Amino acid sequence: MKSHTKYLTFNVHARMDFVHITPQVQEAVKESGVREGLCLVNSMHITSSVFINDHESGLHEDYKRWLEELAPHEPISQYKHNRTGEDNGDAHLKRQIMGREVVVAVTNGKLDLGTWERIFYGEFDGRRSKRLLIKIIGE
Amino acid sequence: MKSHTKYLTFNVHARMDFVHITPQVQEAVKESGVREGLCLVNSMHITSSVFINDHESGLHEDYKRWLEELAPHEPISQYKHNRTGEDNGDAHLKRQIMGREVVVAVTNGKLDLGTWERIFYGEFDGRRSKRLLIKIIGE
Amino acid sequence: MKSHTKYLTFNVHARMDFVHITPQVQEAVKESGVREGLCLVNSMHITSSVFINDHESGLHEDYKRWLEELAPHEPISQYKHNRTGEDNGDAHLKRQIMGREVVVAVTNGKLDLGTWERIFYGEFDGRRSKRLLIKIIGE
Repeated sequence: MKSHTKYLTFNVHARMDFVHITPQVQEAVKESGVREGLCLVNSMHITSSVFINDHESGLHEDYKRWLEELAPHEPISQYKHNRTGEDNGDAHLKRQIMGREVVVAVTNGKLDLGTWERIFYGEFDGRRSKRLLIKIIGE
Repeated sequence: MKSHTKYLTFNVHARMDFVHITPQVQEAVKESGVREGLCLVNSMHITSSVFINDHESGLHEDYKRWLEELAPHEPISQYKHNRTGEDNGDAHLKRQIMGREVVVAVTNGKLDLGTWERIFYGEFDGRRSKRLLIKIIGE
Repeated sequence: MKSHTKYLTFNVHARMDFVHITPQVQEAVKESGVREGLCLVNSMHITSSVFINDHESGLHEDYKRWLEELAPHEPISQYKHNRTGEDNGDAHLKRQIMGREVVVAVTNGKLDLGTWERIFYGEFDGRRSKRLLIKIIGE
């Protein structure tokens, strides 16, 4: 069995934004030499997500509006978590909607994605450095 | 390490509906010859889900009503994504609630599911042909 | 390839509560002897979750309030699922928000978690015995 581990670092300038990372994940699969296996991609932080959806700016605006409705940033006093001095209570909730991780099949040495599937890093508490993990196992 | 890849195709007649697929996934595990490993089942589309929950029609009606409240289909103009000519902006949101994939343990050659766990394909933008991926790795 | 399977049982006294399980999962990784691989942790029930987030009591109260707003327990008659005699329709919805499972990388024989990542069992229909599965594969 082969395995390959890679860490990526992001520093997103907005509080909430989505970064397209399919090329970097595909590159990690290539480096692994794995032809058949599984590829895990997860945020290593608890106020951000890795998710798969469409690479379409209108949809991304829809996600931002919707997540802000489901878990508004303001007023920050509505979250007990913010009593710790943080102002990111909403980000912990938004991340649960969008998910922590994706697991993608590796087939014939490539990410086995559908036509429109693209991998994104989803940031909900940006303006600081954050890490993401890619782990590929297989043969 | 063994691996097995299988694709299933669905054409759901309703816009939103759930299809029970546990038997097909169990069949794929049997074909794989894997006794101990992991089984990934994911939608290859971005307006549908694979999820695990109860095989109970009342619950499925509850899910449909709830998802429609959280991300209504109408008016379609509320979604910027629909400016592309699509009318499925809501489906991209519903799918994030229900998830893209499940990963199930394979133990003694079978899906290691709890008593009431059943695997479903969840469609949120039906009336077109869509694919699902099953990937099993292990020994 | 090595594999290790372990089941944990929980009996949470409240209807909704979160139990920190990172040490038990780390112990299972140690038992497995796996140095590089993947660790699946999933609820075997359909009214509970396994998720990763912060070990902070204020945040956990925020989650409970938020989930109760998104899928209220009362009135139980609002859920068709409860016509079966159950009163846990809401729990099946809450669990979809928080997720069924997490997949965590194993690197150098340890769970490869970010600084603040902690694994939790999330109960939404407690006061009964429930099982969780840990499956580790790798080398």
